[in-house]
Amino acid sequence: MSYTRLTSELALELQGICANSIASGEELLPYGRDYTEDLSFTPDIVLFPENTQQVSQIAKFCNQHLLPLTCRGAGTGLSGGCLPVEGGVVMSLEKMNRILKMDAVNYQAIVEPGVINETLQQAVQELGMFYPPDPASKGSCTLGGNVAHSSGGPRCVKYGTTRDYILNLEVVLANGDVIHTGANVLKNSTGYNLTQLMIGSEGTLGIVTAITVKLLPYPPYRSLLLATFKSASEACACVSSIFQAGVQPSAIEFMDRKGVALSVRHQNIAFQQGDEAAYLLIEVDGFEESELMPQSEKVYEALEKHGVIDVLLAEDSETREKFWKIRRSIGEVVKQHSIYKEEDTVVTRSYLPDLYEGVLKLSEQYGFEAVCYGHAGDGNLHVNILKTNMSDEQWQNQLPEAIREIFKMCKQYGGTISGEHGIGLVQKSYMDIVMTEAHFEIMRGIKRSFDPNMILNPGKIFA
Amino acid sequence: MSYTRLTSELALELQGICANSIASGEELLPYGRDYTEDLSFTPDIVLFPENTQQVSQIAKFCNQHLLPLTCRGAGTGLSGGCLPVEGGVVMSLEKMNRILKMDAVNYQAIVEPGVINETLQQAVQELGMFYPPDPASKGSCTLGGNVAHSSGGPRCVKYGTTRDYILNLEVVLANGDVIHTGANVLKNSTGYNLTQLMIGSEGTLGIVTAITVKLLPYPPYRSLLLATFKSASEACACVSSIFQAGVQPSAIEFMDRKGVALSVRHQNIAFQQGDEAAYLLIEVDGFEESELMPQSEKVYEALEKHGVIDVLLAEDSETREKFWKIRRSIGEVVKQHSIYKEEDTVVTRSYLPDLYEGVLKLSEQYGFEAVCYGHAGDGNLHVNILKTNMSDEQWQNQLPEAIREIFKMCKQYGGTISGEHGIGLVQKSYMDIVMTEAHFEIMRGIKRSFDPNMILNPGKIFA
Repeated sequence: MSYTRLTSELALELQGICANSIASGEELLPYGRDYTEDLSFTPDIVLFPENTQQVSQIAKFCNQHLLPLTCRGAGTGLSGGCLPVEGGVVMSLEKMNRILKMDAVNYQAIVEPGVINETLQQAVQELGMFYPPDPASKGSCTLGGNVAHSSGGPRCVKYGTTRDYILNLEVVLANGDVIHTGANVLKNSTGYNLTQLMIGSEGTLGIVTAITVKLLPYPPYRSLLLATFKSASEACACVSSIFQAGVQPSAIEFMDRKGVALSVRHQNIAFQQGDEAAYLLIEVDGFEESELMPQSEKVYEALEKHGVIDVLLAEDSETREKFWKIRRSIGEVVKQHSIYKEEDTVVTRSYLPDLYEGVLKLSEQYGFEAVCYGHAGDGNLHVNILKTNMSDEQWQNQLPEAIREIFKMCKQYGGTISGEHGIGLVQKSYMDIVMTEAHFEIMRGIKRSFDPNMILNPGKIFA
Repeated sequence: MSYTRLTSELALELQGICANSIASGEELLPYGRDYTEDLSFTPDIVLFPENTQQVSQIAKFCNQHLLPLTCRGAGTGLSGGCLPVEGGVVMSLEKMNRILKMDAVNYQAIVEPGVINETLQQAVQELGMFYPPDPASKGSCTLGGNVAHSSGGPRCVKYGTTRDYILNLEVVLANGDVIHTGANVLKNSTGYNLTQLMIGSEGTLGIVTAITVKLLPYPPYRSLLLATFKSASEACACVSSIFQAGVQPSAIEFMDRKGVALSVRHQNIAFQQGDEAAYLLIEVDGFEESELMPQSEKVYEALEKHGVIDVLLAEDSETREKFWKIRRSIGEVVKQHSIYKEEDTVVTRSYLPDLYEGVLKLSEQYGFEAVCYGHAGDGNLHVNILKTNMSDEQWQNQLPEAIREIFKMCKQYGGTISGEHGIGLVQKSYMDIVMTEAHFEIMRGIKRSFDPNMILNPGKIFA
């Protein structure tokens, strides 16, 4: 595609539609970055629309003038999904951050895309309701971004990802038309499911301007334990055994020794490591306190089968918070520690030990350092690749081969190349591992149906 | 579209690909019908492929020769979704009925599309696993058909519809190419979600030849009660109160007096009606017997707030079976009783009383008889419209107006025109009530991406 370069005349017209904007200078820079590596692309203008009508007018204008239009929420994405690689217009939805409705009778809420995940969680919890998806960045990431990637989080092992909580979306199409993809109902067999198609489409098909979410009753009781293992592979293997024991935990998080060491050191957390190689952080929840013990007992049985060293029960909220902080900080501290890449691998759950061992072998073969952690109950392992002692040449030329090997394993083990981060910019060159040309052709056709001028979030997901 | 008429030469070539076929005579007729009203369209040939390769070759041939290709499972659909309205080729997937894999470690199964819903349920239950979606026709409907419509059933109020249990699909495209839409994993953010797009697309985008389903642990304990109400509106209103009481039943089914009367009379079921106007059939389930009583107590509290007359607890499996038989038979006996139409209305749950009263008003105004029943917990009410005393002229010309009014109410009350039956042939003329031209244009674009020659299931969902 050849796009129009934003002239000062066009910029002025856009500012006529949406006065709240940044049109030059250093202030543009943060809107050309996200949490993915150290990538940066400078937009020509950033707009902050405040309502659907403005979004529609901006889209229409960009479509008419062939201006690239890249939307973003909080910019906490890990695949470069919101980077304006072709420059042009960045539209930040951060000002559209109102909770429009909370309905405690029907267990639904309607929100604008800029609402922070945790803000919604807390607001509905005050009414006894529960919005489960909880990405590590829940304190800053927006629901619009969550929809764009079908974001997950620890609780998804029991409750499902963002995808499972979206009933209806208001979407501005590339030409400015506004549609509602579904209805505010729990089941819907009325035409193609555009709601589900939009979710995970990473801003390439339309701009979500309102979201109807499904809520659950809030389960007030939870019990958290941290199990330490001699062998990381045994910790991975234990995950399947926990399900086999007949329990459905509300989280099963894997952390390797290195990840925990980095986290406690960088965050100054009081936590002593012994000779354990890995950890499982396991939570069960319920509506009655009496539901917790039978579940925990089943978890203990499974742990013992896999050579657990120690099981630390978080007896108070302080310890609970500490354990979660160790887990939640790993991603962030790894990124401070070294030049890195993060792969969001996912496999059929029982292959988790094979994937883990395969990653270690490749790390030896290619000379990178690997820090692995993630949502083991979902078979979703975040593989952080640290540059450490690799030369620049190795990092540039050999690492992509290693990543390709990792993703091939994912496919071999029933999985794929992203569980919850999306493809965005940085994974798209690996898409051929899991998709055939026929599959790409269908996706290209869908893209053309929504966005014939290819203005929306160019350069993402596929070529 | 102008399609090619099937000549005897083309028929012979098709039989060369797939010998198992019906090419003439009365035997064609059952393959031109389903459970929708008394509609009938005769295909030119019926093919019974036995593997993906045959399906692919048939699709490719039809695509090259512009032959309409309509797939079907058991033909239990209620929207005319599998009727070959343009004649041509009907492909029955009934011979592709093998369970290919049951994986009790990962809680997954892989099945061919012709597997009967209940066959899968029973097979996985023997391994302690649970496939929840349970349409009324579960003893005969196929999983391929369930995928085509995202079929529901009573248990969906707790467990979700077919959509929530599909991880991956093998799909033959119109040109014969074969793709896998996803991976055998619980979460997936890798490109556009074609799995979810295929589900509910009613055979218009591709032909599903293998299905990976997600399974749950089987909850072995359940308790069933039948509550009788003086007022049908109060029964509807009670549904929201049950959720407000903090309980998540595994079924909340509404039945009006007429439906139950027809069911017990036609099926010779020993059941005495008093002066009740309506019923709720409520089930709770759990992994421990001790979980049932606290839930049931909360249900009782809600029932008492809404003038319940009587609560009949099904103490033994015989009574349980009887209550479920009353509910499951209604759809069938209504259809034997009169010329009818069935509307699959769905609204935001708290509007159920408004919808019910609105339907009654319209029945008086237009002179039709209404029998209402369905999945009240989902806000999904099956409205059966019986011709009874309406003249043919009224039935032909005035009834469509009445149906339009019903669907307008659905939209007004946050809902839409099909919860689980699909749009198929008979609802498509009402799609404009819930979709704008921009929405149709997107759907048409998607259709063209998958099936540029428009051979797959012509005449369905939208014009």
